[in-house]
Amino acid sequence: MHTLNVELGTRSYPILIDAGILGRPGVLDAQVAARDVLVVSNTTVAPLYLPALSVALRPRRLVAVILPDGEAHKTLANVARVLDVLVANRFGRDCAVLALGGGVVGDLAGFAAASYQRGVMFVQVPTTLLAQVDSAVGGKTGVNHPGGKNLIGAFHQPAAVVSDTHTLTTLPARELRAGLAEVIKYGLICDAALFAWLEAHLDALLAGEPAALAHVIRRSCEIKAAIVGRDEREQGERALLNLGHTFGHALEAATAYQEWLHGEAVGAGLAMAAAMSHACGYLSAADAARVRQLVERAGLVTHVASVGPAAMLEHMRIDKKVQGGRVRLVLLRGVGSAFMTDDYPQAALQETLAAHCGGAR
Amino acid sequence: MHTLNVELGTRSYPILIDAGILGRPGVLDAQVAARDVLVVSNTTVAPLYLPALSVALRPRRLVAVILPDGEAHKTLANVARVLDVLVANRFGRDCAVLALGGGVVGDLAGFAAASYQRGVMFVQVPTTLLAQVDSAVGGKTGVNHPGGKNLIGAFHQPAAVVSDTHTLTTLPARELRAGLAEVIKYGLICDAALFAWLEAHLDALLAGEPAALAHVIRRSCEIKAAIVGRDEREQGERALLNLGHTFGHALEAATAYQEWLHGEAVGAGLAMAAAMSHACGYLSAADAARVRQLVERAGLVTHVASVGPAAMLEHMRIDKKVQGGRVRLVLLRGVGSAFMTDDYPQAALQETLAAHCGGAR
Repeated sequence: MHTLNVELGTRSYPILIDAGILGRPGVLDAQVAARDVLVVSNTTVAPLYLPALSVALRPRRLVAVILPDGEAHKTLANVARVLDVLVANRFGRDCAVLALGGGVVGDLAGFAAASYQRGVMFVQVPTTLLAQVDSAVGGKTGVNHPGGKNLIGAFHQPAAVVSDTHTLTTLPARELRAGLAEVIKYGLICDAALFAWLEAHLDALLAGEPAALAHVIRRSCEIKAAIVGRDEREQGERALLNLGHTFGHALEAATAYQEWLHGEAVGAGLAMAAAMSHACGYLSAADAARVRQLVERAGLVTHVASVGPAAMLEHMRIDKKVQGGRVRLVLLRGVGSAFMTDDYPQAALQETLAAHCGGAR
Repeated sequence: MHTLNVELGTRSYPILIDAGILGRPGVLDAQVAARDVLVVSNTTVAPLYLPALSVALRPRRLVAVILPDGEAHKTLANVARVLDVLVANRFGRDCAVLALGGGVVGDLAGFAAASYQRGVMFVQVPTTLLAQVDSAVGGKTGVNHPGGKNLIGAFHQPAAVVSDTHTLTTLPARELRAGLAEVIKYGLICDAALFAWLEAHLDALLAGEPAALAHVIRRSCEIKAAIVGRDEREQGERALLNLGHTFGHALEAATAYQEWLHGEAVGAGLAMAAAMSHACGYLSAADAARVRQLVERAGLVTHVASVGPAAMLEHMRIDKKVQGGRVRLVLLRGVGSAFMTDDYPQAALQETLAAHCGGAR
């Protein structure tokens, strides 16, 4: 078992990574210090892993809320549904909420845990690559608003993240590819060696080779844990983790969270951020091409047919990265070197959107 | 102008208290470091004070959400309404939410501010006695659930509390009496001198004498600021501020937040806590009688006709103070000396409820 720590003083917590730990006696049991546990999962994941989880958490009182699968269900209405179940079962402030699933389940369950009785214990059991490398770590919780991605939420750190890499054996290929977008992101932000490793080993990852997946999960968690430990509330450095996300969030919101997996939108967003970085003169054409090629080799599209440039810009303007009316963007100075700026030519942004969005290619 | 500080490190903030400061040039202006401000108020308060507030905050962009008045409207649905307005107006993370009103408006607006973009600036402008002495200070925000009071919420400290005591001149007598319940509470918890002062000066307070009101607002804020500064997240001492509240919350929930003002329910709860303390042998009969008499002199009832003992007990069991299935209560060892316990005879609780609740008296 691989253990990492997110160092946040009294709110520090472990990330446990291994194949099969979900059903291994004692592991999960040791992380959930509560008698009453509400499990939040979805209709895809619950049939696969809720039985093993239930055994692992005996003899606690377990109640489950099973949501429909998909980003479109990450809503305040479903948070209210989780809260209703907590109240109906008379769960006290000493209960725990456990998320069993991907990023949608984790973000939503985490916000419910943050809001119930002003905050109860929260445990993440991510079952998708995207959640294991990114969304389950760091304490960002929340739901979407029709007007924008993750506009409603809270910072609420989990008490533990338990990542069973064996769950990736049941992960659909589309979800695996979406998760790879966030891994590519880590390489681009601060780890050129990881990016080169991905270029060399992408086929093994796409084939689901356990050793390759374990490597990128560990490395991604190391990077994220370190950044979150230095900047929990995104006052500075943590914002770099949003590389590709302002574009991606706009794409998700513009399609009503129905068409794109979050990771797919981030994949397209990475290509746009690289192209924009090149258009601004920060990134070489060769490096921008490397980004686009790796994203495309991961099976992710870099051109958006169904949303035009004007709609993209409209949705980017309500993103959380807007400050003083300016859309701040994370751009690249090179592979492994990201920075944030709101000082760029509007023409470069328009050119980038025109090249990547809309019917004609 | 009287200024107090709530000392919470980087989240410290001032409480400004004076008659007429709402319209005094520069005062509010200096506290709201945002270009875009969403004012949350209600249909009673907005016509009285929103015009002056709007002038004080020029030239900021002001948008107002005016909610119906009353505890029954402190709901997640109304938080969603506030969030919709924030999104619709494209307010960024650098906006501020300002609560203009009593405890309902402050709690609800505060939770919206806590949840929008994972937390934006929040400013309290309390216009009721209860909000000025209690709910506007300390960062507890939230809304009610049909199953229980304040079950959904967050800790989110304001950037400032601006208490214009002149607003109390338009406060209905019923609201003034409700606010006095929380002032009596402070005396009972830790300040026997304040309690004795209230016994001596209650008539001046009920008559709305400005000097008397200013005195109790300052003293109440001093006590609360000190306790919150030592125990922001209610790990210990802060729980004493819930004296009378477990009874009171049950009363509010059992009547669907329609019949009782929060302070009225707390008034009845204080009498029940004192009676319970006497039934457990902690408090003398004379002191229990002093409590009941002061509450009744304040114009608050201490006997609840419309809710029976069984319904009260049922609702107390979902209160946030429940731990390990036991209802923890704040009790009194004397006037000015409160403590928390879950170790009391159930018979004493039943006897107390039977004596104070239900049709027969």
